[in-house]
Amino acid sequence: MTTETAPSPLVIRHDHDGYVTLVMSNPARRNALSGAMMTALQDAFDQIANSPDIRCVILAAEGPVFCAGHDLKEMGGISECDQHASLFAQCSRLMMRIVSLPQPVIARVRGMATAAGCQLVASCDLAVAASTAKFATPGVNIGLFCSTPMVALSRNIARKHAMRMLLTGDPVPAELAFSMGLVSDVVDEADLEAATAVLAAGIAARSGMTVRLGKQAFYKQIEMPLSDAYGYASDVMTANMQKHDAREGIDAFVEKRHPQWRHE
Amino acid sequence: MTTETAPSPLVIRHDHDGYVTLVMSNPARRNALSGAMMTALQDAFDQIANSPDIRCVILAAEGPVFCAGHDLKEMGGISECDQHASLFAQCSRLMMRIVSLPQPVIARVRGMATAAGCQLVASCDLAVAASTAKFATPGVNIGLFCSTPMVALSRNIARKHAMRMLLTGDPVPAELAFSMGLVSDVVDEADLEAATAVLAAGIAARSGMTVRLGKQAFYKQIEMPLSDAYGYASDVMTANMQKHDAREGIDAFVEKRHPQWRHE
Amino acid sequence: MTTETAPSPLVIRHDHDGYVTLVMSNPARRNALSGAMMTALQDAFDQIANSPDIRCVILAAEGPVFCAGHDLKEMGGISECDQHASLFAQCSRLMMRIVSLPQPVIARVRGMATAAGCQLVASCDLAVAASTAKFATPGVNIGLFCSTPMVALSRNIARKHAMRMLLTGDPVPAELAFSMGLVSDVVDEADLEAATAVLAAGIAARSGMTVRLGKQAFYKQIEMPLSDAYGYASDVMTANMQKHDAREGIDAFVEKRHPQWRHE
Repeated sequence: MTTETAPSPLVIRHDHDGYVTLVMSNPARRNALSGAMMTALQDAFDQIANSPDIRCVILAAEGPVFCAGHDLKEMGGISECDQHASLFAQCSRLMMRIVSLPQPVIARVRGMATAAGCQLVASCDLAVAASTAKFATPGVNIGLFCSTPMVALSRNIARKHAMRMLLTGDPVPAELAFSMGLVSDVVDEADLEAATAVLAAGIAARSGMTVRLGKQAFYKQIEMPLSDAYGYASDVMTANMQKHDAREGIDAFVEKRHPQWRHE
Repeated sequence: MTTETAPSPLVIRHDHDGYVTLVMSNPARRNALSGAMMTALQDAFDQIANSPDIRCVILAAEGPVFCAGHDLKEMGGISECDQHASLFAQCSRLMMRIVSLPQPVIARVRGMATAAGCQLVASCDLAVAASTAKFATPGVNIGLFCSTPMVALSRNIARKHAMRMLLTGDPVPAELAFSMGLVSDVVDEADLEAATAVLAAGIAARSGMTVRLGKQAFYKQIEMPLSDAYGYASDVMTANMQKHDAREGIDAFVEKRHPQWRHE
Repeated sequence: MTTETAPSPLVIRHDHDGYVTLVMSNPARRNALSGAMMTALQDAFDQIANSPDIRCVILAAEGPVFCAGHDLKEMGGISECDQHASLFAQCSRLMMRIVSLPQPVIARVRGMATAAGCQLVASCDLAVAASTAKFATPGVNIGLFCSTPMVALSRNIARKHAMRMLLTGDPVPAELAFSMGLVSDVVDEADLEAATAVLAAGIAARSGMTVRLGKQAFYKQIEMPLSDAYGYASDVMTANMQKHDAREGIDAFVEKRHPQWRHE
């Protein structure tokens, strides 16, 4: 049961059972994060944030390149500092929108993900990469260090691995990206769509309330000292436990039957 | 020289030369962290905290499952929010007791460690896993996100690896858990007891004072900004250097002989 | 085009095109970080900090041991607490000097790097290890826990991997050190000099302004909460974008030609 709508020519949205796929669709420009592309993504995510029936999101791309980062023609054509600041702020807002989105976001990566495109992957909760995919932060090659991408990158992988990517711009193949922690799954390129769909459908089949509570708590607790994190997470679990779906889930487990979620 | 005492029928304590083994002993209930089991563990750790002759602890389990997390029958049988809050608070206290224990704690894992059982492993300083052991945080399957387990988990492994465990509940085999950073050693199942005993005896053969200072400093400095961490750690090393065992250790090293620790 | 000067008999400096190599040169004392060695390194780094023509640094060592940490004869010969405090403070200043140095520092490691020698490696931005190199924090063997080394170590690798090194003192081979995140490259011992030179020359061939901005921002943002980090990094990128070399780099990229850096 798949329906297709197009909120913008740059981002195509496919609706599935309980989850959606957003496809960046400007392969001729290697899906660059132009102002227009970022606006289209932000709008699509904002709409999803208010759709409780959507319980997972796949962020994918058309063509042989996942995303090449900022649109350098657009960037180079701007002379005013304010306009650059505005583009970088828009990009950071988009990345934080993914983190703050109630639903988990899975990057589905074929080909190269570079600069802010690599940051997109790092900002998602999960990432499934084709074994042929590659990841790089090559801003150093054009005199513009990948300073905002490194915010996400350095929160995903070890410092020396991040520094190597940032100081050399060298691409990292998918298997190494997995062992570093930048992606959560690597699959044969032929299986990319199917494997990502299985992962998304699996998350969508769980209680949306539970997943929402959990994702929000994850990013909140990770910035706290240990004892504060435990105080906070204990409150979250207690609140979670009072919800219908936790009661139902535990009853179903004890009674050895499938739970019936209400997603609340 | 091994003696055996039983502070509780749920946790068996074995005393060895300089270290103890605590064995969770409710295999019929998959060593679930019921209120009673958590009380027994807390009591055992509290007693160890005040025993300077104990210099290392092994946390082990009886039966084919290391620990299945909270006791869902107990949890499901409770209707009042206060009682849930009390169970989660007790669990967080237990995990922080392991972190604040003066002695290093080594998890010795055979079989599955799930939910709060996986949190137990993540909370220990070291973990030796049988190559057949598995780790999972499957709360999402019963509508109750593993929010407190993720506090420990997300401080052990990369974010995307943690998120994958939390959002899917999928079990992670021992070798992958090692490369992720969730366990510190993987051995053949047949060697699990012997390898863990060698590790514990090795730590117990060092100066208890030195190990105590070091463990405490580890968790304190890790939450500080870099320059504060260096200021603090330099003070710790200076204090360490004034102790008998550091003087003795350095003299022995220079004189090429075995040091004679006083553990002070 | 290589010239050689010797700011101190303990540290030899080789100047290359755009980068320098500092060689710790006391192999008879296993390049121990005596007060004199630390002073020589600090002086060499301070001088480099004020040399904008230097865009990368290799930190290397003469002989079969990279660096054995503090000089235990010197340390053991001191009886006053103040003097120990002074040595540890000097060591921490040196490590923070590497982190705060405008230029990236690459450790080039052959043989063993132990205790504060392992901390040197952890403190560098990148580390190229011979496949035969090993890393250890064995202070626990002499009653003096590696408390200051662990500040750098625990910011490089997962907690359980760090704890295992600290509590056992066991050496970690290069390949494992790479997968843990302690080093950024492993090469055949025969290729160590050449591979490190290629890496350093590559960084030196980029815009020094860009690399400087990026390195400084890396360590600053990594200690911030996510939204602060994005605010800060967006400002850094906007400032970077106003510089000559970013304009030139983007123009060159769009025009498909090599950029001409002014390093400003």
